[in-house]
Amino acid sequence: MTASKSTGVARRKAAGRKTNAGKGGHLHAVIMAGGKGTRFWPVSRETFPKQFLKIFGEKTLLQNTIDRLEGKVPPGNFLIITTRNQAELVRWQTKGVLPPECVVTEPRGRNTAPAIALAAFKKKRTDRNALLLVLPSDHYIRDTAAFSAAIDASVPLAEAGCLVTFGIVPTRPETGYGYIKSGKAAGKDIFKVERFVEKPEAKTARALLKDGSYFWNSGIFLFKAQTVINEIKKHMPGLYAAFAGIESQLGTMEEPKALEEVYGRIEPDSIDYGVMEKSKRVCVVRSDFGWSDIGSWNALEEVMGKDTGGNVVLGNSVNIEPEGSIIFSSGRLLATIGLKAMVVVDTPDATLICPKERVQEVKKLVEKLKQTGKEEYLLPKVEERPWGHFSVLEKGAGYQIKHICLKPKARLSLQMHNHRSEHWIVVSGTARVQRGDDVFYINKNESTYIPSTVKHRLENPGMIPLRIIEIQSGEHLVEDDIIRFDDIYGRSADR
Amino acid sequence: MTASKSTGVARRKAAGRKTNAGKGGHLHAVIMAGGKGTRFWPVSRETFPKQFLKIFGEKTLLQNTIDRLEGKVPPGNFLIITTRNQAELVRWQTKGVLPPECVVTEPRGRNTAPAIALAAFKKKRTDRNALLLVLPSDHYIRDTAAFSAAIDASVPLAEAGCLVTFGIVPTRPETGYGYIKSGKAAGKDIFKVERFVEKPEAKTARALLKDGSYFWNSGIFLFKAQTVINEIKKHMPGLYAAFAGIESQLGTMEEPKALEEVYGRIEPDSIDYGVMEKSKRVCVVRSDFGWSDIGSWNALEEVMGKDTGGNVVLGNSVNIEPEGSIIFSSGRLLATIGLKAMVVVDTPDATLICPKERVQEVKKLVEKLKQTGKEEYLLPKVEERPWGHFSVLEKGAGYQIKHICLKPKARLSLQMHNHRSEHWIVVSGTARVQRGDDVFYINKNESTYIPSTVKHRLENPGMIPLRIIEIQSGEHLVEDDIIRFDDIYGRSADR
Repeated sequence: MTASKSTGVARRKAAGRKTNAGKGGHLHAVIMAGGKGTRFWPVSRETFPKQFLKIFGEKTLLQNTIDRLEGKVPPGNFLIITTRNQAELVRWQTKGVLPPECVVTEPRGRNTAPAIALAAFKKKRTDRNALLLVLPSDHYIRDTAAFSAAIDASVPLAEAGCLVTFGIVPTRPETGYGYIKSGKAAGKDIFKVERFVEKPEAKTARALLKDGSYFWNSGIFLFKAQTVINEIKKHMPGLYAAFAGIESQLGTMEEPKALEEVYGRIEPDSIDYGVMEKSKRVCVVRSDFGWSDIGSWNALEEVMGKDTGGNVVLGNSVNIEPEGSIIFSSGRLLATIGLKAMVVVDTPDATLICPKERVQEVKKLVEKLKQTGKEEYLLPKVEERPWGHFSVLEKGAGYQIKHICLKPKARLSLQMHNHRSEHWIVVSGTARVQRGDDVFYINKNESTYIPSTVKHRLENPGMIPLRIIEIQSGEHLVEDDIIRFDDIYGRSADR
Repeated sequence: MTASKSTGVARRKAAGRKTNAGKGGHLHAVIMAGGKGTRFWPVSRETFPKQFLKIFGEKTLLQNTIDRLEGKVPPGNFLIITTRNQAELVRWQTKGVLPPECVVTEPRGRNTAPAIALAAFKKKRTDRNALLLVLPSDHYIRDTAAFSAAIDASVPLAEAGCLVTFGIVPTRPETGYGYIKSGKAAGKDIFKVERFVEKPEAKTARALLKDGSYFWNSGIFLFKAQTVINEIKKHMPGLYAAFAGIESQLGTMEEPKALEEVYGRIEPDSIDYGVMEKSKRVCVVRSDFGWSDIGSWNALEEVMGKDTGGNVVLGNSVNIEPEGSIIFSSGRLLATIGLKAMVVVDTPDATLICPKERVQEVKKLVEKLKQTGKEEYLLPKVEERPWGHFSVLEKGAGYQIKHICLKPKARLSLQMHNHRSEHWIVVSGTARVQRGDDVFYINKNESTYIPSTVKHRLENPGMIPLRIIEIQSGEHLVEDDIIRFDDIYGRSADR
């Protein structure tokens, strides 16, 4: 079987359907959104990894990933696989674009192989010809048209039973990516895969670049659900058995319990290591659509472009003679003199300063934060929530001040605190307040007081954001002192 | 006349007095506290220069300067010469240590010559044998005993009519200091002065260091009030005439008006240029008391000492393999990788990053801030006040949130705002509030509201600091919307 032959077969088959795979129908997008994102610290945080950040404009990387497939994958064909603590953020960032049931929560992160197995088993139940386009949620693609064309060209391969990988033509001896060694050509821009290469040392990376037969492994795949299930059965029989055993419970009320059980015993493994490196069905499509995994701060150079001094300067800064540096502020002032090939990243509570050539060590730094008891910097200072956001302005002995912003029409859960009272002062917008049995409105410049143990709810009935300052007072100011009676965002009473 | 001879005379004379000059009596300290302090930006700010900072522990540089003379200069013999906008800070930082009349306010900064002329004329009126020890308020001296001994050794010289300068034995080819070329020896460690040298280029600095006959000009002087007046008369006749003309008004109620008039017409000039470089009476005392003018961030190395990696690390930071760097945080986290010979200084609203060899360019940076409309960073974020301090937590359209801390027993002026209302929430301590004709107390966790145009006053009647959160609301949130009816800190109604 040659790839060109299978292409012909696929085209004929596709022509017989109302919507062919390339335009929807059996094409499903499986977006992996469980990443930790330590490499983009301090902007990304453990509970707010890279995929949820607006690094390049109005939308987050996750939202860009979805938008890129507009008109290609129907909203109902998406599956976003994420972890429990990120599910709320995913639902919020995809609200109105994808149906909420698109979000699938793994009980715990077990790397890509279980996530893909889960997606394949789930999709196969509703569409036995499902084609899965597996995408990381936090990558950058400059040329959407070329990306779309690469998918179109790969659909027939996948339909013919290939595990398609997208190999990016390397442009530099990058040590932050894995590589794919291409073998025999199997069509225009299509090759058999000889082997996968782990992230190389600098010297090896230079050799791979020079060799010409190596591509960057983008982590984007296309295959039939049935194909990948077959290959998992062959190369990861334990994983196969685990999911085959709960197949009938997937998509039912019993799914969460079944997943809990399965994820309790399966081992973490990547699809690359578990299947791709072993399967005979893998091929690589030579791709050139301006891809980056934005795996470190240095990637801003590729993605944003440099100024005449070779710098990328974003946000509030004053710089004297910077050269080849990346200077990023999220609000505070950065004032620099004579930076050379440095990365400076500023956030409300932490600043990173590092030579460009050592950005990969940010992971090490994050480790060091844990070791030195500075875990607070692994969590975000501005906390995004489905109803808006808040930030802690100040925390002191017995008090805490928050700036809370509620989106129009948003409302918090009906709740109560045992150990803290709250003052609310409206700084813009109008608040509807339930306090005990009373319901009343407070306007800009007005305030109210919620004693401890009194049920209360805050709501923004208006058309503009409601901003309030909340001063919490009490001896036990922790988030877990909250009893929720109902919550429109579906958060359970104990969260 | 030789110095050793004059020493003998001075000693004999001194022995005849109850307290000799070296132990008080005629020895007066004139502290110059009008510096701008841009070189220590972003920690020092225009309204909060270096002398008011606690860089090395519990006390500020100004307070250290005063403490260093304990037992040597009686409190009543101090004169602190400062500018109008710093006088309040000086009074506050010297409260309980020096009588308030020690603080002398120049109507405007006119460099050191007018300040010294003013001090000399004032002191001469009350003590015609006054010896003036002129000291910058923002320098560092490691060895107080050696400093004290150097003064003792110089008193006889000054009493004999010398203008004594203290020349520091140079330890490196510093380009940030002026130099004094010593001439003929006039006693042990005492030399005639051949000439003064402006801050040199690096090459010249190396030559001066090698030469061995050059000292750093510490800016510390000792002379009789009468001597310096005589020399000013000779070399700066205009300046002399100006002060001689108002001599009878100094120390009277008419002094402020007289100074206003004089300072309106005199030219700025330094004592070095105006007198020292011209006078034949100048001598230099070889000094080695661990002096630094802390003229740039690099001075932290001399003053604080380096760790084994050659770094000075102060405050909250996590650093991977720093080398020869200065890393200073006032609270937020600095996270660095592989810094080499860099200076990083973090403050609540701005971060400076700069190679050590370019710290002198911080001045340039401050200029650039002005040019680019970022003047806000020239003012401090945490504002110190005689009654305590405050910081602006957040500023938005139509509102501003401040954290205000009142010291025990402190009270603000009775005041009124035309365009803003204020919410006050007590987070610790107890507040006594006057609102219109009402006076009431609010405790921790309680709040009150002050509508615009209502007279009000906030007071801390208690024994512990009073902390309140103030939310200002209104369309015109500027400090000048304040009408003061009375103020225990003596601030005029328009400030």
